Amino acid sequence: MTYVAAIDVGGTTMKGGLVTRDGTIHHAERRPTPRAGGPEEVVGAVAAFVADLARPRDGVRPLAVGLAVPGLVTPTHAVFSAAFGWRDVPAHAFAPGVRLPVALGHDVRAAGEAELAYGEGGRDVLYLPIGTGIAGAVVLSGALYGGAGGWAGQVGHIPVRPDGAACGCGQRGCLAAYASGGAVAARCGLPGAEEVVRAVLAGDARAVAVWDEAVEALALALATYTLVLDPAAIVIGGGVSQAGDTLLVPLRARLSARLGFRQAPEVRASSLGARAGLMGAGLLGWRAAPGA
Amino acid sequence: MTYVAAIDVGGTTMKGGLVTRDGTIHHAERRPTPRAGGPEEVVGAVAAFVADLARPRDGVRPLAVGLAVPGLVTPTHAVFSAAFGWRDVPAHAFAPGVRLPVALGHDVRAAGEAELAYGEGGRDVLYLPIGTGIAGAVVLSGALYGGAGGWAGQVGHIPVRPDGAACGCGQRGCLAAYASGGAVAARCGLPGAEEVVRAVLAGDARAVAVWDEAVEALALALATYTLVLDPAAIVIGGGVSQAGDTLLVPLRARLSARLGFRQAPEVRASSLGARAGLMGAGLLGWRAAPGA
Repeated sequence: MTYVAAIDVGGTTMKGGLVTRDGTIHHAERRPTPRAGGPEEVVGAVAAFVADLARPRDGVRPLAVGLAVPGLVTPTHAVFSAAFGWRDVPAHAFAPGVRLPVALGHDVRAAGEAELAYGEGGRDVLYLPIGTGIAGAVVLSGALYGGAGGWAGQVGHIPVRPDGAACGCGQRGCLAAYASGGAVAARCGLPGAEEVVRAVLAGDARAVAVWDEAVEALALALATYTLVLDPAAIVIGGGVSQAGDTLLVPLRARLSARLGFRQAPEVRASSLGARAGLMGAGLLGWRAAPGA
Repeated sequence: MTYVAAIDVGGTTMKGGLVTRDGTIHHAERRPTPRAGGPEEVVGAVAAFVADLARPRDGVRPLAVGLAVPGLVTPTHAVFSAAFGWRDVPAHAFAPGVRLPVALGHDVRAAGEAELAYGEGGRDVLYLPIGTGIAGAVVLSGALYGGAGGWAGQVGHIPVRPDGAACGCGQRGCLAAYASGGAVAARCGLPGAEEVVRAVLAGDARAVAVWDEAVEALALALATYTLVLDPAAIVIGGGVSQAGDTLLVPLRARLSARLGFRQAPEVRASSLGARAGLMGAGLLGWRAAPGA
C-alpha cells in the first residue's frame, strides 16, 4: 500500500492521516490547532504533526505531504491567513527535515476538489463547508471556478444584513457573523456548534433564536447565489453540516420562501462530511508525489 | 451591403434597426412599447415594426430577423415574461407574412453577447444593464454562463435589504426595487430615470435621497457578486448607465467601502451604451441568416 501524509489545518482542529490514491484515510488523528499561541506556534504544531505522519510504518513511508490551509495560498506558500496571522510561510517550513515533496492548497478548494473526485459531484454546484468560518467552492460546468484573481467563493462575507453584526473581517452583517460555527457558539455563549445544536434540540430559547437567525442568514445568501448562478445543488459540508435535518429542513423551507418566482435548487449535506478537507489534502499530496 | 432586421424589445421602448455583420446600426428607430395594452398589443407592435424593417431598401431586403425580448425565452418561443404577461408566443407570431428566418433571444444575454463581440470585453466580467428593470449577463472565462437551467444572472432580485421595499417579482428588498430605472422614477414621482438624474444634479432633496439609496443597494449587490465570483470588471449598461459619473463615482466609493479586505473590481459604463441590446438582437439575426 502506498499513501501520502495529509493534514487539514482548521481554525480549531487539525485533522491528519495517511491517504491512499482512492481517498481512503488510514491512521486518522485529530489535534487541536494552537491558534491562541500565534502564527509560529501553529506552524510548529503542523510541522510536528507532519513529522509524526512521515515516519515509516511497516517499512513504508508516505510519498509526499499535502496540507490544506485557510486564507490566501499558492502551491509553495501560505501567503496570508487572518485566522492564524501568518504571512508568506514557505511550504518547507511546515516540514523541516522531512525529505518529501510538500504541497499546499486552500482548505475549502481542496475540500471542493475532494467532493468532485470522491463525492456525489455535479456540474453546477456550490459546495459550502461551514466550520469555524464559512467559505465556498464554486463548481461551474464541472470545474472549480477561481475568478479573475483566485478569490472567488467568499460566500461567508456576503452582506446578508447590511450594517448588522460585526464580522472578524472588519465588515458588518456578513453571513459568517450569523451562521458560522464560531458565530453561533459565541452568540449562545457555548464552546462550539455541536453544543448549540444540542441546546436547539433541547428547546433552549436562546439557542433556538440564534439558530433561527443563522438559518435565515444562510437562506438569504443561498437565495442570492441561486439567483446569480442557478446551481443544480448546494452541498453543505463542515462540522455544522453534522446538524443534519436540524439545519437542512428549515433551511430548505426558508430558501424556497426567498425564491418566490423560481424553484430552489436541491440542498443536501455532503456525503463526505468533515472528511472532505482531509481527503482534499490527500489529493494535494498525490499531485506532488513523485511520478504523479 | 447586407444586413438583418433587429429589434430590442424593452419594457418602455422598442429599439429597431438594420444591423450589418460588424455591428453597425443603420436606420435606427425607437417606438414606445405599448405595455399597458396587454400582451397581444405588444406582439402586434413588434410585428408592425418587423414588417417596416423587412421592406426592401434600394432593392435590398434583410436576410433575417433578430428579436431580443425579456423573460424566459428559447430561440423559437417567448416562453414567459412578467413585464408583458405573455406565454409561449412562437417566433413567427412576431413576423406574420414576413418570409424571413426569425430568431428570438434573451435581451440581457443578447446585450452581453454584443459586449463580448463588439465591446471592450474581458474574460471575467459582470455586464449589468440597468433599464426599466435590472438583469445581468455573467461572463466567466470569456463565455456567457447560463447556470444549470439557464436562469443565471438574476442580479436584480438579489435581496439587498431583507424584508425591505416590495418588488414586482413578489419578493421584498430586491436590488431592482431600489436601483432600477423604474424604481428610482416611481420613488421620486418622476416619469423616468433621466428626469431623476436631472433632479439629482439640480440638488432636489428627494431625488438625492432616492439616488443615494439606489447607489448603496447597487454597491451591496456588486460587493456580493465580487465576493462570490471575483470579476475583473463590472460593466454597467442600459439607460441608467447614461447617468455617467453621477452614478459611477459614488458607486465605486461605496463598493470599495463594502469590500474592506479586498480590492474592488473596475466599475465602468458600457462603451456600447444603450445600443448593446440592438446590436445583440442583430447578432441573433445574423445567427439565423441563411448560410450563417
